[in-house]
This record gives sequence, C-alpha cells and structure tokens, in this order.
Amino acid sequence: MALLVEKTTSGREYKVKDMSQADFGRLEIELAEVEMPGLMACRTEFGPSQPFKGAKITGSLHMTIQTAVLIETLTALGAEVRWCSCNIFSTQDHAAAAIARDSAAVFAWKGETLQEYWWCTERALDWGRGGGPDLIVDDGGDATLLIHEGVKAEEEFAKNGTIPDPTSTDNPEFQLVLTIIKESLKTDPLKYTKMKERLVGVSEETTTGVKRLYQMQANGTLLFPAINVNDSVTKSKFDNLYGCRHSLPDGLMRATDVMIAGKVAFIAGYGDVGKGCAAAMKQAGARVIVSEIDPICALQATMEGLQVLPLEDVVSDVDIFVTTTGNKDIIMVDHMRKMKNNAIVCNIGHFDNEIDMHGLETFPGVKRITIKPQTDRWVFPDTKSGIIVLAEGRLMNLGCATGHPSFVMSCSFTNQVIAQLELWNEKSSGKYEKKVYVLPKHLDEKVAALHLGKLGAKLTKLSKDQADYISIPVEGPYKPAHYRY
Amino acid sequence: MALLVEKTTSGREYKVKDMSQADFGRLEIELAEVEMPGLMACRTEFGPSQPFKGAKITGSLHMTIQTAVLIETLTALGAEVRWCSCNIFSTQDHAAAAIARDSAAVFAWKGETLQEYWWCTERALDWGRGGGPDLIVDDGGDATLLIHEGVKAEEEFAKNGTIPDPTSTDNPEFQLVLTIIKESLKTDPLKYTKMKERLVGVSEETTTGVKRLYQMQANGTLLFPAINVNDSVTKSKFDNLYGCRHSLPDGLMRATDVMIAGKVAFIAGYGDVGKGCAAAMKQAGARVIVSEIDPICALQATMEGLQVLPLEDVVSDVDIFVTTTGNKDIIMVDHMRKMKNNAIVCNIGHFDNEIDMHGLETFPGVKRITIKPQTDRWVFPDTKSGIIVLAEGRLMNLGCATGHPSFVMSCSFTNQVIAQLELWNEKSSGKYEKKVYVLPKHLDEKVAALHLGKLGAKLTKLSKDQADYISIPVEGPYKPAHYRY
Amino acid sequence: MALLVEKTTSGREYKVKDMSQADFGRLEIELAEVEMPGLMACRTEFGPSQPFKGAKITGSLHMTIQTAVLIETLTALGAEVRWCSCNIFSTQDHAAAAIARDSAAVFAWKGETLQEYWWCTERALDWGRGGGPDLIVDDGGDATLLIHEGVKAEEEFAKNGTIPDPTSTDNPEFQLVLTIIKESLKTDPLKYTKMKERLVGVSEETTTGVKRLYQMQANGTLLFPAINVNDSVTKSKFDNLYGCRHSLPDGLMRATDVMIAGKVAFIAGYGDVGKGCAAAMKQAGARVIVSEIDPICALQATMEGLQVLPLEDVVSDVDIFVTTTGNKDIIMVDHMRKMKNNAIVCNIGHFDNEIDMHGLETFPGVKRITIKPQTDRWVFPDTKSGIIVLAEGRLMNLGCATGHPSFVMSCSFTNQVIAQLELWNEKSSGKYEKKVYVLPKHLDEKVAALHLGKLGAKLTKLSKDQADYISIPVEGPYKPAHYRY
Amino acid sequence: MALLVEKTTSGREYKVKDMSQADFGRLEIELAEVEMPGLMACRTEFGPSQPFKGAKITGSLHMTIQTAVLIETLTALGAEVRWCSCNIFSTQDHAAAAIARDSAAVFAWKGETLQEYWWCTERALDWGRGGGPDLIVDDGGDATLLIHEGVKAEEEFAKNGTIPDPTSTDNPEFQLVLTIIKESLKTDPLKYTKMKERLVGVSEETTTGVKRLYQMQANGTLLFPAINVNDSVTKSKFDNLYGCRHSLPDGLMRATDVMIAGKVAFIAGYGDVGKGCAAAMKQAGARVIVSEIDPICALQATMEGLQVLPLEDVVSDVDIFVTTTGNKDIIMVDHMRKMKNNAIVCNIGHFDNEIDMHGLETFPGVKRITIKPQTDRWVFPDTKSGIIVLAEGRLMNLGCATGHPSFVMSCSFTNQVIAQLELWNEKSSGKYEKKVYVLPKHLDEKVAALHLGKLGAKLTKLSKDQADYISIPVEGPYKPAHYRY
Repeated sequence: MALLVEKTTSGREYKVKDMSQADFGRLEIELAEVEMPGLMACRTEFGPSQPFKGAKITGSLHMTIQTAVLIETLTALGAEVRWCSCNIFSTQDHAAAAIARDSAAVFAWKGETLQEYWWCTERALDWGRGGGPDLIVDDGGDATLLIHEGVKAEEEFAKNGTIPDPTSTDNPEFQLVLTIIKESLKTDPLKYTKMKERLVGVSEETTTGVKRLYQMQANGTLLFPAINVNDSVTKSKFDNLYGCRHSLPDGLMRATDVMIAGKVAFIAGYGDVGKGCAAAMKQAGARVIVSEIDPICALQATMEGLQVLPLEDVVSDVDIFVTTTGNKDIIMVDHMRKMKNNAIVCNIGHFDNEIDMHGLETFPGVKRITIKPQTDRWVFPDTKSGIIVLAEGRLMNLGCATGHPSFVMSCSFTNQVIAQLELWNEKSSGKYEKKVYVLPKHLDEKVAALHLGKLGAKLTKLSKDQADYISIPVEGPYKPAHYRY
Repeated sequence: MALLVEKTTSGREYKVKDMSQADFGRLEIELAEVEMPGLMACRTEFGPSQPFKGAKITGSLHMTIQTAVLIETLTALGAEVRWCSCNIFSTQDHAAAAIARDSAAVFAWKGETLQEYWWCTERALDWGRGGGPDLIVDDGGDATLLIHEGVKAEEEFAKNGTIPDPTSTDNPEFQLVLTIIKESLKTDPLKYTKMKERLVGVSEETTTGVKRLYQMQANGTLLFPAINVNDSVTKSKFDNLYGCRHSLPDGLMRATDVMIAGKVAFIAGYGDVGKGCAAAMKQAGARVIVSEIDPICALQATMEGLQVLPLEDVVSDVDIFVTTTGNKDIIMVDHMRKMKNNAIVCNIGHFDNEIDMHGLETFPGVKRITIKPQTDRWVFPDTKSGIIVLAEGRLMNLGCATGHPSFVMSCSFTNQVIAQLELWNEKSSGKYEKKVYVLPKHLDEKVAALHLGKLGAKLTKLSKDQADYISIPVEGPYKPAHYRY
Repeated sequence: MALLVEKTTSGREYKVKDMSQADFGRLEIELAEVEMPGLMACRTEFGPSQPFKGAKITGSLHMTIQTAVLIETLTALGAEVRWCSCNIFSTQDHAAAAIARDSAAVFAWKGETLQEYWWCTERALDWGRGGGPDLIVDDGGDATLLIHEGVKAEEEFAKNGTIPDPTSTDNPEFQLVLTIIKESLKTDPLKYTKMKERLVGVSEETTTGVKRLYQMQANGTLLFPAINVNDSVTKSKFDNLYGCRHSLPDGLMRATDVMIAGKVAFIAGYGDVGKGCAAAMKQAGARVIVSEIDPICALQATMEGLQVLPLEDVVSDVDIFVTTTGNKDIIMVDHMRKMKNNAIVCNIGHFDNEIDMHGLETFPGVKRITIKPQTDRWVFPDTKSGIIVLAEGRLMNLGCATGHPSFVMSCSFTNQVIAQLELWNEKSSGKYEKKVYVLPKHLDEKVAALHLGKLGAKLTKLSKDQADYISIPVEGPYKPAHYRY
Repeated sequence: MALLVEKTTSGREYKVKDMSQADFGRLEIELAEVEMPGLMACRTEFGPSQPFKGAKITGSLHMTIQTAVLIETLTALGAEVRWCSCNIFSTQDHAAAAIARDSAAVFAWKGETLQEYWWCTERALDWGRGGGPDLIVDDGGDATLLIHEGVKAEEEFAKNGTIPDPTSTDNPEFQLVLTIIKESLKTDPLKYTKMKERLVGVSEETTTGVKRLYQMQANGTLLFPAINVNDSVTKSKFDNLYGCRHSLPDGLMRATDVMIAGKVAFIAGYGDVGKGCAAAMKQAGARVIVSEIDPICALQATMEGLQVLPLEDVVSDVDIFVTTTGNKDIIMVDHMRKMKNNAIVCNIGHFDNEIDMHGLETFPGVKRITIKPQTDRWVFPDTKSGIIVLAEGRLMNLGCATGHPSFVMSCSFTNQVIAQLELWNEKSSGKYEKKVYVLPKHLDEKVAALHLGKLGAKLTKLSKDQADYISIPVEGPYKPAHYRY
C-alpha cells in the first residue's frame, strides 16, 4: 500500500482501504446512533451553540463505527477533526470510508504495518502550516508519546545537535518513532515544540495511556493538561467490564467458532477487563481459572466461584487463554509449548507483549498456518501440536470482532466529548495545569443518566428531607469521591 | 447463477459458489475435527471394516464445516455421498468447496433462491441411472417430502394421467416442488417410485422433520423406515439447548453488533431451543420475557426468574425478538408496526413463517434497506420507524453466523452416523418397518461417553452391588426410557 | 416417649410432640395456603361435590406445614385422614399439632427413633375394626412395604405356620418391620390381607418408592394399583430440581452458617436433585464438582461449566459434600478420613445409606460432638481432624431446614390430590389394574396452569390454525409423551 | 428483665440471656475459628508480643459467634474487653454466654428493648473508676454518639447548668440517650469528658457510622481519631456485597420458608449491599426490580439485566421488598397498603427507619399477628390483606438469621484488629489527629492475602521486570488509591 495521502472532492485528506464502502459504513453509523444516546444527547444539548467552533481535534483511537459517531458528534459541535487508529487491526474499513467521505480526515485501515501505523499517526497530527491540533483524543497514548518524544529530541537537537538514533533501541516500534522524529528534525526542528505549545490538552481513553500520563506527571515531564477519561466510573466500570463481557465471546466465536461451553478458560488478571471476561466465559458454560498478583482481586474471584491459580499450575489443562493484565510477558513461548493441541491464545488487555509473540515467531522450526486473517495456527516442530493465536497477540475483540458494542462505547465517548469540552472551554482560564485530571463526579453521573432512558430505566427521586438526612444534594453528586461502585 | 452441474477432474459432480475457497475450508475442517471427538471415534472404531461399502447416501442438511466432518466420516466408513443444504442461507461456501473438491458431490451455496434450493435437492437425490440413494440424512424433511410427493404424483399419474398443478397451491415453495415433479413425470414417470423402492431408510435431524414423519406414520403414508435422531437425548437436549445458547448471541453480534446487556429480549417459545436462547440472553445481561402456550414450560420459565407474557402485552417494550416455537404466525406484521425503532426480529426455531415475512414484504409502502447480507432494516412508511430483520426470517444462527459450534454438532452427528449404520446393517433383517424409531438408550449413552474425554470429564464407576441395589446393569443403560434429563 | 395414642376432645387419635404448638402451626399453615395455589384451587373446584365422601386415606409423608395443607385439602374434599411421617427427622411439630387438633389423626414428631417410626406407620394404617385405609399417599413406599411384607408373611403363615424371624436380617430397620408383623400375626393373622383387599390404590411421591413399585410390578407381586406421582413433570422437574435448589443452601445455612461462596462443593449425582443442588451451589459462589455414572448426565454437567470427576480424585479438596444419587455407599468412611478438617457431609437424595453412617459410627475411636440437633462433628482419633455430618446422613433439607418451600410442594401435592381422586373415582371401573400408572399429560399441564397466576405469568393462546399446523389440540396436551422438558 | 449486672466466679461483669448456652456457644466459636483465617493469623502473628497489653477496649457491635472470635482475638493479643451489641435483635445468646463466661464482659441479648439497649451500651463503656475505654470498636456509631452527646451536654452544663431535656425530641431513641446523660450528669458531671480524654480512638465498622464520623469531621466536632474500617476494600466490597448475598436469602428462608424462585423481588438501592441482595434474588430464580437515585448505580443494574423503576410504579406487583439504601422513609405505610397480600417487607441496609415502622404501627385499626419472633403479619383493617414484616424493620439478616457468615466477617474483623493495633501503637506518636482515616492499601491487601489459602487460591508472583514495567513494587500495593475493584 503506497503511503500517499488522497483527497476527497471537497479537498479533505484521507487514506483508507476502500472508499466504496462508505455507504455501508453510513448505514451502520445510523444504526449505531440509535444505540449511542449519550452522544446524541450531546449533539442536541451542545450542537446549537457550536462550542468547538475553531477547534482542531486530532484523534488516535480505534477507527470503528462507534468512533465514527464520536467524530461526528465532535464535528456537530463545531470541531475540525483528523483521525487515525490506535491499533493496526482495529479499523473498520467501512467506518473509515464513511467518515473520510463525509466528516473528517481519516488515516486508518485494518491490517496496517507498524510503519504504516506511525505514518497514519503523524498524518493525523499534521494540521499543515498552523502546526498541530488544539486538542487530542488519545487511546493508549501514542499520539501523546510522539509529541513528547519529538519535543525531547528537538530540545536535545537545539542543545547539542544530537539526532535520535533508531538503532539505540531493541524495540522495533520505538525505532519507528525515532525514525519519524529524525526525519522531521530535518524539515522542521521545532515541529513538535510548536505542536505542544498550541495544544490545549489531551483526553486519554485507557489504563495504559493513563499510566503513562501519571508517570510523566510524577516525573515532571508532562507537557500539557490531560483528562483521564479511563477512570470515570462510566468508562472503566462499563466499557472495560461490560464491553469485554460482550466482545470476548464475540471475538472467540468469529475467529474460531469454538464451543465455549464445557471448556476450561484461563483469564490472566481479574481487574475490570478480567472480571468481564471471566463473567462471559462462566456464563457461556466454561470452567474459569483466574490468575492474579493482587490478593484483593484474587479474593473477589474466589467469591464468584472461580479458581485462582498461576498459569504454570494449569497450562496443560486449559482450552482458552485470555490475557487482561496490562502487563507484559504473561504467556511465554515456553507456556505455549505445554498447551493442549489447538488451545486458543488471545489478548484483550493491552499491547501484544502480554503474549510472547516475539518468542513464538522466532521459535526454531515453528510453522504458522493462517486459517483466516487474525486467526493463526502455530505448530511446534517437535510435538506437531499447535496453538491458535488470535489477532497476532493484539486486542482480539478489535482484531477478530468489532470491538465493544455501541451502547457501552456511548458511555465512554460521552465522557470524551465532555472532557474535550471542558479542556476547550477552560483553555484560557488556567483551571487546568500540566497535570492529569479526572472528570468531576456530577459529570460522571450525567453520562450515566443520559443512557438510562434508552433502557427504560427510571430513577427514584430523593426528597429534600432524605437528601439532608444523608447530607447530599438532591441533585447529586450522590457518592463520595472514593466510592467504588 | 446458471444451474449447471460442474465436475471435478476426478469426475465428481458439484455446484458450489467458489472452488478456490477449498483450502480455507480444509483448514477449518481440520480445526473442527479436533472439536468433534464423537465423529472421529466413529472413524477409528468403524473405519477399518468399511461398513458403508456400497452404500449411496444423500444428505439434505446445512452444508457447514461441521457437516463436512460428518460427510467425511460417512465416506471414511465406505459410503458414497451426495449432499445439498436444507436452508438457502446456511451453506458455508468454503466448506462446500472443500467437500466438493475432496470427498463428495455437493450442490449448495449461501444465498440460494428457492428455485435453486429445490434444484440442489433434486441433484443430491439423483444418483443417475441406478436410481436414488440407499440412505438419506435429512434435516427438516425436504428430501423425504420430495420423494413422498413424487411417489404420490406418480401413482396419480399411473392411475389417471393426472399431472400436478403448481397453481393449485398458494405456497410458493410447494409450487416449486410440484413443478419439479411435473417435469420429472415427463422424463421418467417412475423416478420417485424407483427411488423409494431402493431406499433403506432415512435418519431425520430436527423437530420439524420428525413431526412430519410421525404424521405420515399416523396416516399410514410413510414409505420407508425412519430413525428420529432429533429425540436422542444427546441431540435434542444438547444441540437444541446448548447449541442455540451459543449461536443466538453469535448471530446477533455478527449481524448487528448490538449490546445485549440492558436490553429486553422476548423469546417466543420455551422448549429446548427457547431455553437455550433465554439462558443466553439472560447471561448476557438482558431482561428476558418468554411467551408460551404450554403451562409446564411456562412454569419452568418462571422458576428461572423469567417473565411469561403474551407478545401483545409487551411488543412495544422489547429490543430483541426471537422465535423458537416451531409453529407459524408468531410475529405478525401488525406486531412489527408497534415495535420500537430498530427492534431486532429473528427466528432460530423453524421455517421463515414463524415471522410474517410475507406480510412485511407486502406491506404497502414498506422500504427495505439492506445493511449487509442477512441484515435488513425495514422502514414503515407512516412512522418512519424501522425494524431489523435477520436472515430474512430464516434460521438466524445459520444465516448470520456459522450455526452451532462443532462440539455440540459432534453429538448430533454421531447420532446420525450410528443411525445410518443401524439402518444399513439391518437393511435385510426386517428389524425396521415403515415406522419412526428412536435410537436405543445405550447408543445415546455411548454418544455422550465419546464426548467426555475431550472435556476432561471422568465418570464414576458403579459397583456390582450398587447396580443391583438400583436394579440396573453396571454398564448401563442407566435410566428408564421415560427419564427426562 | 411412651408410645401411647392420645385423643383430642373430639375423639381423634394422635401422637405428637407438643399440642401447644398448634396455634403456631395454624398461623404457618395459613401463610402456606397463600403459596399453594394448586391445592387451594382443588378445594374451590372439588370441595363442593365432596368427592372423597366416605374415603379413608392414610398418608406416610413428611409431616410438614405443606403436608398440612395437603391433608386439609383431602379433608376439604370429604376424606377422613390418618397420617405419619416418612422420615424420622422431617416432622415439623407445630404442623403436626395443628393437624392433630383440627383435622386428622397424626402420629409424627421430629426425632423419632426407628422403632417409634414404625409404630407411627402402623398407627396411621390402623383404621380400627373396618380394616385399613381405602387409599394411601406414600413417600418412599414404607406404608406400601409394610402391607406387602405383611401379606407375604400372612400367606406363609397360612400355608405352613411360619412366623417371620427378625434375626434373619442384618438390616436393623427391616428387623423392626418383621417384628411388627410377627406381633400382628398373633392378634390378627389376616390383618394385612384384609387391608390390601380393601385398598383401592396408592399414589407414590418419590423416585425411591416408585422404583420399588416398578420392581414389584415386574415381579408380579404388586398387590394394588399405583399412581407414580413422582414422574409427573410438575413433580420430578419441579420439586426435585427447584425444591432442592432452594432447600440445600437453606439446610446448609441453618445447620452450619458456613459461607458457601469460595468453597468447593461436590455433588454426587446429576439427576434432577443433583442439578438443583449444583445450580444452588454455583449460584452461591461455590466451585462445583459433580460425580456421575451416566455419561449423558455427565455431559450435561460439563455444558454448565461444572467439573466431572470421581470422588476419589478430589476428596481432599472439597469443603461441602452432597449426595443426591438415590443409591447406596456413595461416601464411605474411608473417604471421610481423607477429608479436610470440618468438611461438611450431607445427603439430600435418599436414605441414610448414601453416606456410610454405619462405618462412621463404628469407626474405632471416633468421637461424636453434637453441635446442635442434626449437626454433628465427628472427630477421627488419629488425625484429630473432624467432619461435620448433617441430619445423621438423612435428608438434610428436612432434618436441618423445613424441606421444600410451599410453592413447589403445591405442584407435587396437587398431583397427589388429582391422583387420589383418579384412583377413588375409578375404584369400580376397572380402569386401573395392579400396575403402576403415570398421570395423563393433560392433568400434568393442568397442575402447572393452576400455579401460573400466582406468579403473574400469562399464557399465549394457540389459534386453531396454528394448532392444526402442528397437529395438536388447541387446549392441549401440547407435547408428546416422550417430551423431556 | 431486671437490669442488674451479674458477675462470673472470676468477677467478670455480664448480663446475658442464658449462661447455660455457653457450651453450645463455645462449640460454634470453635467451628467459626476454622472459617476465620484472618483473625487466627493475627493471633499467630501478634499474640506472642501481646501488643494490647494494658489496653481497655469497648465494643458496640452485633454480639454474634463471629464477633466472639474477634473479641477473643483482641484478648489473645492482650486486651481487656467489654462488649455490647449495636442492634436489639442481633445478639446470638449462646455466643454472648460463651464470651461472658470465658473472655470478656458482655451486656447483650437477643430482643432487647431500646431502653435495655442503651443500658447495655452504657455498661460496655463503663470501666469503673479509671473512666472509659482506651479504644472503641463501633458499628453504626452509637457508642461514639453517646460520648459526643455526653461531652456536649457536660460542656453546656458546665457553662450554664443546662440539663438535657428528653422531651425536646420526638425521636424515642434519642430521648433515651438524653435521659442517660441527664442521669449521669447528676452523679458525675465530667463522666464523658474524662472518657473522651482517655480515648485513643475508634474504629468504625459501617457506612452509617462512617457517615456520622465524616460529618463530625466536617463540622469540627470529632473528639478523637477514627479509622474508617468500612471503606477498606476487604470490608465494603466483601462483607456488604458477599455477606448480604449470603444472608438475605438465609434470613428470608428462616423467617418465612417462602420459595424465592418465580417471585418478584424489589431491592431499594443498588450500592454494595443492594448489589449483593439483587444477585442473591436473581440467582435464586426471582425476577428483580431495583430502585436507585444514583444514575451510575442504576446503569450498573441495567447491565445485569435488572429492571430499574421507582417503588411507586411496581408496588402492587412485588412479592419481596428489601431496603438497602442507608436512607430513611423508603417504604412508607401508604406503599404497604397497596402491596399484595402477604408481601414480605424487610430491611438489610440500615436503621429501622428505612421502613416506615412508625406509620405502620400507628395505622388506625392495623392488626399485628406474630407468626414467630421477628416474623409479623400486619393486617390492614379495610382490605383484610396483610404484609409480613421481618425483624420489626431492623436488619433482617441479623434478626431472622445469624448475620453474615464467618468467612466474610473474618475479612471485616481482621481490618478491625489491624485498625485497633494501628491506633494503639500510634497512641503517642501524633500520627492520628481528630480525623477520619482509612487503612493504607498494603494492609488492605494483607487482609485479603490472609484469606486466600483457606480457599485454595494461589497468587501469581510479579517479576521485578514486570513490576518495573507497570511501575509498582513487586510486593505491592498493586493499585492506585482510587482503584475501584
């Protein structure tokens, strides 16, 4: 795929797989809108006043149908938008086509190479002469990372002419980042510096990206304000939990058609994602074993009737392995060699380093048989026994299915819209420093409230007398900040 | 699609969508074999003695990957096989291609017209000069129906020269059946009569086909012995229940990506299929309402916390409608007009007449928007509100997903192999008259036993003393015939 | 407790624990009536015509509050009733007192010795001069057994003067039966012969009693017609399954207060009772392991995510052991010695020989510590480790809690009323021979229908056209006899 | 019951129901110890060093078997203890007897009047001449309240001789508090002042008590340091959630024997307690309707398939009403009048004012029929229809059953022991000011870890490399403070 930017008749830039899928994408976007009441309510409430008038927003977030509804909510509120995906497999090509044709600049397709991925990220950040975006919607923090690394390199370059050396790292992905920056130094040695100066802030979608932000805050290296959307209750306790409860079995079924009932499923990690995955497997009739490092989460698992054991103890008994830890080196190639024939191995947590893909790919004599895209059987030479790896170790719900369903993404993305509005409205007030913030609870509660009507749920109203009795306002927020839901 | 039979280089007849998908089909067949221990055990136990040597078997049953493993089990036991699908949407084209290339004559593709469907059925029954098949594997009874109707017409024709009149019926599908027979009368007025004379018997897969057989038995019109595979415990209590529990959400997710959690699901019918569907929806976080005519099944539903109400009472509150009744006229167009916008309507029970597709299609001004194949949005002219109909009202798990998973189909299909063996082995013994038979319990228990090892289950052994105490043989059968499981 | 019959002021015979509890019993009976719509509907429908006018009914069935409502339904329909319990621990003394005071002759108390138990049975069968009862409601078949053994002995005695020898058997309970008969031979050598001649028939409540009846039928020794109530769908699939799902945790909690969540529960047997028990333990957060001899039931367990393993493989890992097999010698003292300290061992299936109580009681040096009635800790001398045995190995839900709840017993007992009516109405018609019968399906469906209104369930009505389409009557029965629900 | 303190032969003061139940209590305490690994581990770890040597601890917390194990853990660590219950129905008399005989001064019995209740509280706080206790274990905050009110009154009295006027309040319970203080002013006008001066701190068990503490902190009136045990994860997310999931059905079954399956249950509030209750009812086969004021909790309920509606909308359809809100005036007498006959009404959340007991008791013509202690049927005069109220509106799991099971209380109480140790060890360090504190996360994780072994759970160990990757210590704590579990 030649990496050339294309343009619509209206002049909008894009690079997608197949523009002819735009009509199909539009139909699915229209279906999704009915399932995304929070976003549609934002259009109704804020659309008339065009609060994002003049704002340039770059997004780096799975380019799916649901994201399309997010993007068109941002544009409905007045923003100009450029978008890339944050995962090489997660783009839905028809969604990308519809948005590119109708609403925003998109650089994304399903099955990017890593090099293509970073090219797309760079394109999404490139607003031409005017510099970078005003706001970033980030997922996993790659757009934020690129700017931070760019600024660091530009400072070094300014100081002593140092140019980043891609061979200085073993990490092939980070080599690409350094290469991009190295190239941009040649054409514009202040590209990222100008970008960060313009930037009002970022709202970050996931645990992994949020962790990076808190580390930068702790190190004093964070370059602009950030809103941690991940830790809104209506995000982390909904999308992570209920989203994965839906999309893990979806991905398994689409990729392998395997019967889940009767099988033994191993879930590495029992955080929100692991809880959703374990619930899904248990409900589908599997026997579930969980691994945990955290004794509290482990004890929660036991209370649900799940067995808690380390991978080593059960690796030969399990049919379906799922990583949800957000950490690395969870399932190593040595584990894989001990697995049952045709055991399924997949990741729904984090990057592809939860599973030792590198160890697998480089195992002497290993044979890869692609059943269909994102479903590979890897056969070990000695045993002739194989395992089935989904989405090359990357997020299987996005690689093998269509990610989380619209309704739960509406919760997450309504938080994003509110966070972006907050950053933009307060851009000159000084309210937000170069720190990481969580949305206030009343906005979190508002996001939830916007989703109840669609499900026929009706709230009970607190009387003034009752509100006084428990010392909270009648209209909320109803819980203290530390409340765990 | 021109209806011309093609031939492989080895001379085997076929008509499939795309022969180039044969390799992909083969890979998925190999995966499925690992999940179908009952069929593989049959190959090991019976393969060496080639019990089907000389037997010609016609199958009319969804041409899926799982069916491919059934077909190749039959051929591994010595049979010659011709196959068609029993549903216009249920063929998996890669499975059909692999079988056509490697193992048996196949006439099937996804998305047949009704006319193509009956052409395929006729092809599968046509063994050339020698007449028809020795044995039939039937699903829904269409192959059996064609022979019975053919024989009836030939008898009429012999008696008084009457030729069937396709315009004598309103049912468009039955018009096609009569047309086929009318044509065959011209070329061979004893075609079906010779066929039924050769025929050793049929083994029938589903409730609907079994009902037809018992009616013919009751009317004294059944022309050959039949084994009712559907009512083996390891079929009806597994495939219907656990199969649908798996494939209903699978079909919903592939067709619509809709979030099931939080929705209201209406399941018409609480038989085995309905029980599986209700369980699946409940587990996925939906609120489930069931309708039933049978007070016993209705009371079972209440014991699981499900609401039992007629469709009329709740039609405007439901998000997902699923018919599982095996009856007709369950959801009528007048119901559909009262539904929520984008309510999903689908059938997993029986023919497409559970849902009033005819009423919908002919509703004045209704507009059909095809989101993607088997997912249509129908918009009513007055309200501009639409509903989403899956698989054109036909079996949604086969039309929108890949049907039941391999493991549970292995239970059903091992019953099929055993039934076919039984009919063939007893073809001259007179054991089977022109009646409907169920497999004896010890064979049913054997089918189950063949599937336990794969799941790591280990049986407890009865001692002689214990067996005597409850008056059963140590080696089973363990239950009386009327036991309900 | 001196075994003397007492009399109410109205002359009714009884022997209960404490007549002062009658008021409390009456209050609970009134509560239960609201929960037993089937029985109350029988009173409304049949009460006015007094169909049991002149009928003498003996019952041998757990003397609980629910049974009290059954008894008073029988008397409301005109019967005279005498009652005993069919289990030494299952009587609720307040229920016995209320019935004894108000409605029927009762001989039952919680904690009978075996000798007292058989004395009570004899009393319940003794209708004075007129001989025995017209009808028997039996549970487990002890009343039926006594008559059959009595008749056999009387025949032997008439033939050759042989008198039964209680020392001829090791079984202590059967010794008591022989002793009773030996005594009665002295006073009336035709007592049981006359009894069986008068007897119209018996309706039997449970699997165990039904098995005995079918054996007698097979052996040609059955002395009178029997209706197998157990195998009505509305009995075996409700009381066994949903009843035990309710009463197993109830019994465990009342007896031990142990937290079920997080524990490992072992369920021996996965029939209807086992299915209910396993569901209850899984839902309460336990990890469940099932043992089975029957591969079909075993495969069902795997489909629900349960592990299937023999007791030997897991005996040291389990916290709660439950026997549901209806067989003997399931948990032996050698198993018990290998259990965890304070493992709970109980039986909800059948007689106290599912658990090797004899082996435990006679184990050298074992120490019994009674925590409270029906909750004993047994300590082994070598390990100082103990196990907790509930209800001395007898039915723990009746011994440690109050048995099944009223609603599900209303299903069972409505079958009993209908069976008794059927036997009585047909007493002279010759319809019933000395065989075992099941109630016809339309009566089974009627029982279910009587229970739907209480739960707010509303049936869907079949149209004539639909009924014809599936060839069943509009008003049912809706399913073939072999249908498994 | 005459309110006279009694003394054991060893001189320990007590007032319990029946000292002869001490042996029974001891047996159950020994059983509970096996289920309370956290407390037993504290005895092993801290017992030898006697850290509580010289500490006088007053407890006001349900005097159950589990609390007995807590008390004896405190005494095993060197403390002297005086105890009362914090609920008039929650004492288990055999537990109280065993502790009074063997370990600590106890003033508690099941079924205290309110006057007796406050007398007991006063006794537990009265350490004789030396003044009050060094430490308080409080549950609901009544002991803390009494001291704060006492100090306030003493200050008023010192200032201007004002004596509290019990008639100044409508609240009958607060009248009793004022009366007690009024009396004490006569004998020692500095009693509570001296008490608060000696006091090192309080550890508080529940939401209600914690709310009071935070209010006092906010108002600046808190007189001593407080540790909020309730908000340890291993407390609020275990005891509230899993404890109630266990004890709600337990209480319902013991009190009413009602079948839960098939019923409609209404759960007011979907916090941790409500979540546990809703899960329990759903699992038992009820249909569950939830009411909520908080949109986030409401949305969580919908994701589990629960209906969310205000009480008004469903009051006539519900069979079982459960309040879990921690607020007042949830179910009013006007609601009760609209309920079905024999609807069950109970509270598991908070005080008896969640249910309008006052309105019920004073409703003209209402009739109370006590079925058994803590189970009352209230009949309205106009309709003759009745409702069943459990535990007089107080905590039904403690009033009608035995409260939470030992294992989950071991989590809560291990937090209590650790909190008490923390307060005592830091009594002179100034670490704790007059504020409310939560235990640090590593102690919370420790509590969980102490409970895993008993359940056979085994943790996975983080490698140094992995720990660095996610920037946490290998040995924990593993989560940020705001993590919600």
